[in-house]
Amino acid sequence: MTTPKKSTYNISRYLLHRLKEAGIHHIFGVPGDYTLDFLDEVLASPLKWVGNCNELNAGYAADGYARMKGAGAAAVTYGVGGLSILNAVAGAYAERVPLIVISGAPPSHRRDTGAMVHHLIADYYVQLEIFKKVTVDATILTSADSAPDEIDRVITNALIHKLPVYIELPVDMALLSCRPPHTISRALHRTSDKDSLEECVEDAARLLDAALNPVVLAGVELLRFGLGTAALNLVETLEIPFSTMLSSKCVLPELHPQFIGIYQGNWSREAVKHQVESSDCLLSLGVWMTDFDTGLFSMNFDNRRVIDVGDGDVRIGNHYYHGVQLGDFISALSRKAKTRAYLTSHPHETRRLKDRFIPQNGQILTAPRLYECVNSFLDDHTVLLAEPGDAFCAAPDFHIEEAENFIVQAYYTSIGFCTPASLGVAMARPKKRPVILTGDGAFQMTAQEMSTLIRHGSNAVIILINNDGYLIERMLHEDGLYNDIQMWNYASLPEAFGGKDKVIGILANTEDELAQAFATAAAEKNKLIFIEARLPNRDCSEGLLRLGKAIRQSNPKK
Amino acid sequence: MTTPKKSTYNISRYLLHRLKEAGIHHIFGVPGDYTLDFLDEVLASPLKWVGNCNELNAGYAADGYARMKGAGAAAVTYGVGGLSILNAVAGAYAERVPLIVISGAPPSHRRDTGAMVHHLIADYYVQLEIFKKVTVDATILTSADSAPDEIDRVITNALIHKLPVYIELPVDMALLSCRPPHTISRALHRTSDKDSLEECVEDAARLLDAALNPVVLAGVELLRFGLGTAALNLVETLEIPFSTMLSSKCVLPELHPQFIGIYQGNWSREAVKHQVESSDCLLSLGVWMTDFDTGLFSMNFDNRRVIDVGDGDVRIGNHYYHGVQLGDFISALSRKAKTRAYLTSHPHETRRLKDRFIPQNGQILTAPRLYECVNSFLDDHTVLLAEPGDAFCAAPDFHIEEAENFIVQAYYTSIGFCTPASLGVAMARPKKRPVILTGDGAFQMTAQEMSTLIRHGSNAVIILINNDGYLIERMLHEDGLYNDIQMWNYASLPEAFGGKDKVIGILANTEDELAQAFATAAAEKNKLIFIEARLPNRDCSEGLLRLGKAIRQSNPKK
Repeated sequence: MTTPKKSTYNISRYLLHRLKEAGIHHIFGVPGDYTLDFLDEVLASPLKWVGNCNELNAGYAADGYARMKGAGAAAVTYGVGGLSILNAVAGAYAERVPLIVISGAPPSHRRDTGAMVHHLIADYYVQLEIFKKVTVDATILTSADSAPDEIDRVITNALIHKLPVYIELPVDMALLSCRPPHTISRALHRTSDKDSLEECVEDAARLLDAALNPVVLAGVELLRFGLGTAALNLVETLEIPFSTMLSSKCVLPELHPQFIGIYQGNWSREAVKHQVESSDCLLSLGVWMTDFDTGLFSMNFDNRRVIDVGDGDVRIGNHYYHGVQLGDFISALSRKAKTRAYLTSHPHETRRLKDRFIPQNGQILTAPRLYECVNSFLDDHTVLLAEPGDAFCAAPDFHIEEAENFIVQAYYTSIGFCTPASLGVAMARPKKRPVILTGDGAFQMTAQEMSTLIRHGSNAVIILINNDGYLIERMLHEDGLYNDIQMWNYASLPEAFGGKDKVIGILANTEDELAQAFATAAAEKNKLIFIEARLPNRDCSEGLLRLGKAIRQSNPKK
Repeated sequence: MTTPKKSTYNISRYLLHRLKEAGIHHIFGVPGDYTLDFLDEVLASPLKWVGNCNELNAGYAADGYARMKGAGAAAVTYGVGGLSILNAVAGAYAERVPLIVISGAPPSHRRDTGAMVHHLIADYYVQLEIFKKVTVDATILTSADSAPDEIDRVITNALIHKLPVYIELPVDMALLSCRPPHTISRALHRTSDKDSLEECVEDAARLLDAALNPVVLAGVELLRFGLGTAALNLVETLEIPFSTMLSSKCVLPELHPQFIGIYQGNWSREAVKHQVESSDCLLSLGVWMTDFDTGLFSMNFDNRRVIDVGDGDVRIGNHYYHGVQLGDFISALSRKAKTRAYLTSHPHETRRLKDRFIPQNGQILTAPRLYECVNSFLDDHTVLLAEPGDAFCAAPDFHIEEAENFIVQAYYTSIGFCTPASLGVAMARPKKRPVILTGDGAFQMTAQEMSTLIRHGSNAVIILINNDGYLIERMLHEDGLYNDIQMWNYASLPEAFGGKDKVIGILANTEDELAQAFATAAAEKNKLIFIEARLPNRDCSEGLLRLGKAIRQSNPKK
């Protein structure tokens, strides 16, 4: 294959140009022989290659990156790579994260003959067809003439829809010369239907203005579409109290005087549940009614009093407006509805902010105390990643002020996500410190990616909640030995992963050991801190206890 | 949910009954809330649950198990579990391994409303549709009436076609009462068309009988369809010399006087290549013309002199017979063709068997010497798993006598396969000792599954070839920093994975250290032996050097 002159474009360089334009400066992945020509171009480009231990981890890392930067990319090889990253891509699809997957592929002339090349699944289109099911757009680049347009369309769709996309780059296409990228002035958002928008906003404003105790429920799409500021402007302009959800935690500031707390149906704290559900006009912005966000569908709303805005549609009571985009709706409503005196809508419960954690010496650590201590450690320079499990049950009670300082997969809930995702956070926000709160079962899934954090000198703080198995399953179902896992000697992991001088590993059995561990973390800002917090058997957060209660309420037979 | 009486069947018990009938005594997997009712039934059954660190590893383990026992099973939860195991299932599909995947799923009433439950990808059929692409049959169990027939059909298809299948078991179906399993007398093989078979075998026998130097090329389907004994009877009855391939290595005994050696196109040793390609009648039995098995499609056959039998079809010269099954063809041909004197067809090269490895004290270890030493360690009680990479390039030169003592993914080549697959081998053949030969890059992919080996007291021997990165890519493409990986301190892993008293970890830099390591392995038959063999940069097997040469021949520009 002839390498084109540096001044000209080939398909790989074209693609890299568009990725950079989308704000992507790091590509995660694992090399394979079908991708090496492309990876040579990555190394020669301004983008940085971040190799991972395996492809699933690369996908999680790119997802974490995309949540911070607005888009992320991962490059893998065909078959063994493509299908290994798939679960991360499906997670990005479910959670609306624009993750761009680039997969190498066998050369086109092999495809034409159907040759049995390594990494082939069944035929040369299976991988594309599978990815079509978990992406908003997918393509195989088959010629230098069509590749630029294909790349432009696919990446644009990722950015507009905030969904993953798939680009298959056969090895013999990677270095083919192609046209340079034109300047494209693309509208990266969907536009609203003007008449629908106008009527809809009038309708909503009328209801809101007439309401005595309206509440805004700020949902996850505000995060995904970057509408936090617009929504803040709305609630402040109209002076309406607001609640967030686990999936949208801290999309609006938690110290804000209008903040009620986290709404989770029957999983909520009682005061929050009451105030949200008794509202006579609930303005629901970009909310997904997922099982965890609704306390297993235990939300109790009077639909006639709900204005539900999201994903292009608005429902007011029992009628619908189509083609109304969330951002447009928020802006228009901010101008249209009346400002009200923020009087009666104070939360009924004193909000729990941060207390300084004062350890009792020698006191055996409990889950609630562990989480108090974690909460007290978090600040505006940390990004908390809470693993599905007890960690994400505890997380709603933490005080986090900035939207981008909290990451959770509250809907797709793929355990093992957080450790690799923190690598993406570390690359995206080098000045922030990732804090990973993970259970032992989740950690074991993707543990090796800690070695990549070490490799890149990350100063992440990994808090491993060691409760000897799959705790959440123990709490929500009769226990069985399938919840047992091998007890690792976690303290040896930093050394094993080559982190002897770069990691401080700390075992905490007691409150003072834990407090000391976080003091060390605060002092050692340039090292990776690995805290193993051992908890008594079946000890868990108040949140998980509430979840168990909510489940029993929803299914009394369990 | 009401638990039925122990004496009655429910869908889970029915399924478990059929699995056991198929020779499956262990189920691999990871629990999740959608599978717990099923897993309770597993625990109450004669089958043994083997939990894994993650689902991909569970899939590899079940694949390794299926290669030994004729079928394997893995149970995972929905979405996050199903899509994480997918790559292992695709590998089983490509390589024809009957792997039965059981996936939990959200309850049916949630599917009916399309509710946004955790682990949901996009809709409730996406996972089924994806699995349909990498299985021979797939189903969602939707009622107690239909479930038994569905289960029977799907499992039968796995066993007939030697391909993976998918059974989705919604959580509310798991404990529903159903009819007991009937005795089924199913023909677990496809039948041949009688007339086609007769004419085809006559045709083949005529060609064979007239040939001066016929050769049998024994391919991978003989392994997958359990036809090794039949094929051995054929070559012995007719007295025709035979060659095997990397994918079918030792399907026929390597000490056999008619054994020529391993054929790999231009990747072969010269003498083997010459004898196979100069044959005036090549009888190809169940061969897949994959890139690695043919030295990147460098086989040089005169198609007019080839009888190609496989997957229901026979090609003789340029005409085809359909509906002729491999097993039937072999039996009929054994009776039809004439016995010949085995005279001129001796292999031209002296076969390389085992030499005792005599270390030179203090001599820095090299790749060829490492592989000599491994070869000398293997015996009829070991099962070698050779990872794609330098390990599977070196493996053809090892002497292995029994078909089931060697496992390789020579076609799909998913690195990271061997460590988890060895867990399946350990469960399937407790009296044998798995020997894993893996590179460091491959090992890091799935390293945590070593902890499951430890948990179950496995006496596996893991030989980690530490050459600091993705060696095969370094050798076959210009090197780039994407081939670098984090240097782990592998010696700390046994301790980290909780194996302090169950594992002996040994670092070998020199020949005598390596010899001592294997002596320890031989003496300590009840412990897991973890040998890290450090090799000089870019040192590799003779096989990999030959592969590089074959690639350059096939693509002179590279």
